Amino acid sequence: MALNLKLPEDHRQVIRGFIRSKVGDSGTNGVVLGLSGGLDSAVVAKLCSDAIGPERTHVLLMPENRKSDPHFKDAEELAKDLGLIYHIFEIERIMVEFKVSLDSIEPDDMTLANLKARIRANLLYYYANSKGLLVAGTSNKSELMIGYFTKYGDGASDIGPIGDLYKTQVRMLAKDMGIPEKIITKVPTAGLIQGQTDENEIGLHYEVLDRILLGLELKLPLHSISSTVGLELNEVERIYDMVTKNRHKRKFSKIPKMGIRTVGTDLRE
Amino acid sequence: MALNLKLPEDHRQVIRGFIRSKVGDSGTNGVVLGLSGGLDSAVVAKLCSDAIGPERTHVLLMPENRKSDPHFKDAEELAKDLGLIYHIFEIERIMVEFKVSLDSIEPDDMTLANLKARIRANLLYYYANSKGLLVAGTSNKSELMIGYFTKYGDGASDIGPIGDLYKTQVRMLAKDMGIPEKIITKVPTAGLIQGQTDENEIGLHYEVLDRILLGLELKLPLHSISSTVGLELNEVERIYDMVTKNRHKRKFSKIPKMGIRTVGTDLRE
Repeated sequence: MALNLKLPEDHRQVIRGFIRSKVGDSGTNGVVLGLSGGLDSAVVAKLCSDAIGPERTHVLLMPENRKSDPHFKDAEELAKDLGLIYHIFEIERIMVEFKVSLDSIEPDDMTLANLKARIRANLLYYYANSKGLLVAGTSNKSELMIGYFTKYGDGASDIGPIGDLYKTQVRMLAKDMGIPEKIITKVPTAGLIQGQTDENEIGLHYEVLDRILLGLELKLPLHSISSTVGLELNEVERIYDMVTKNRHKRKFSKIPKMGIRTVGTDLRE
Repeated sequence: MALNLKLPEDHRQVIRGFIRSKVGDSGTNGVVLGLSGGLDSAVVAKLCSDAIGPERTHVLLMPENRKSDPHFKDAEELAKDLGLIYHIFEIERIMVEFKVSLDSIEPDDMTLANLKARIRANLLYYYANSKGLLVAGTSNKSELMIGYFTKYGDGASDIGPIGDLYKTQVRMLAKDMGIPEKIITKVPTAGLIQGQTDENEIGLHYEVLDRILLGLELKLPLHSISSTVGLELNEVERIYDMVTKNRHKRKFSKIPKMGIRTVGTDLRE
């Protein structure tokens, strides 16, 4: 078993049909998503635009500060090129206000990074609520499986068009769709902490990670994934643990089930 | 069939055991929840405090402005009486900053109400992330079933201790647990829009709503729920539609499934 990833032939058709039917079924006017200048959001924007038209595809550019964000210009250029409806909301001042309000709490970098992602989710939902739109998420399958996203932050959306495509597949798709080369070749980053890159944080390149994840999806034994991919067993176990441990991020809040026992006995009268 | 609700005998034990095990399994230091001065959050706070101790039960009081919030004093009094760790974060200034940043977008009352709930979720997660805690939600089963909560707002939590108890059952539980009478007898409100009450918005008293919901939970035909509860069939259908239409609020983002088809054929080698 090679554990190689390809794109299924009809992937674009499936995703576009999905977007159209979700917008149609929900009776909304279209979608809104955050456009960062990175690969995933570029692909989702293009898929939505192809599916329902650029005039129903809204994108929000939400840098902390447009001058200091190295990806801002690429995002703006893409929004213009695709003819999407776009707005720019810098989140720096909102960040500051949160920190002022919470000044008795000492946050670490990760807490602040998560806050950024959650503020962006708030802006997307504010915009979606006021315009009658669905929020399209931009998480790919690799991120979703290992939980590499902020719960109720970038994980917060109504539909996830690329949620069943691994990162390496998203890259293939981007090439097929003519996403600009400079966006495709960027080093992937969540853009939340300066200098952060996905692959440094995860400790593996996506090419390797995705093969492991595919093996897990196929329920192969960990040792056979390890030998196929040519990686130490404990690395495969580490990824397996991430997938297991972060399952809660893809689920609704855990509730203690009382089930039918909440019902008075006279119900069986 | 009477469709009457009771509390199962072991409910408190089940919920306390659930809270203890979730905190234990996650390796966190306790829980944090938003305390509004209303019934549901008071009950959740008491259950958590009983389960893991007041010193591991943190509550955040998050009025827009403590002076103008009619429930603030009750919340503070309860936090003190139970000996919980509590902090006060007024959200007015953060609200203003969002509105300033989004001033090109004209929001309606509901958009602003949802924003409030989402800001509170952000504060809870900021606090939880920095202190290593689980966020406990305060939604009851009635609200969860009809979708009477803000997606990724008050719906955002790690555990939902009273998520399988109808509102009328939460009231019974509150009496049993000695929650102050003035909190139990308050008119239920989400506290997001001035003058708003749950029962006005839903169009039914919880006593009636919960009997309908119980009928739906038991998968009884709508007409028999209608005759048992003594309510027009179209009212029962209206509630049924709310339950169906808002199911997405209790689910992770919808993803177009490619399943195994994303996998190259050489996998079956």
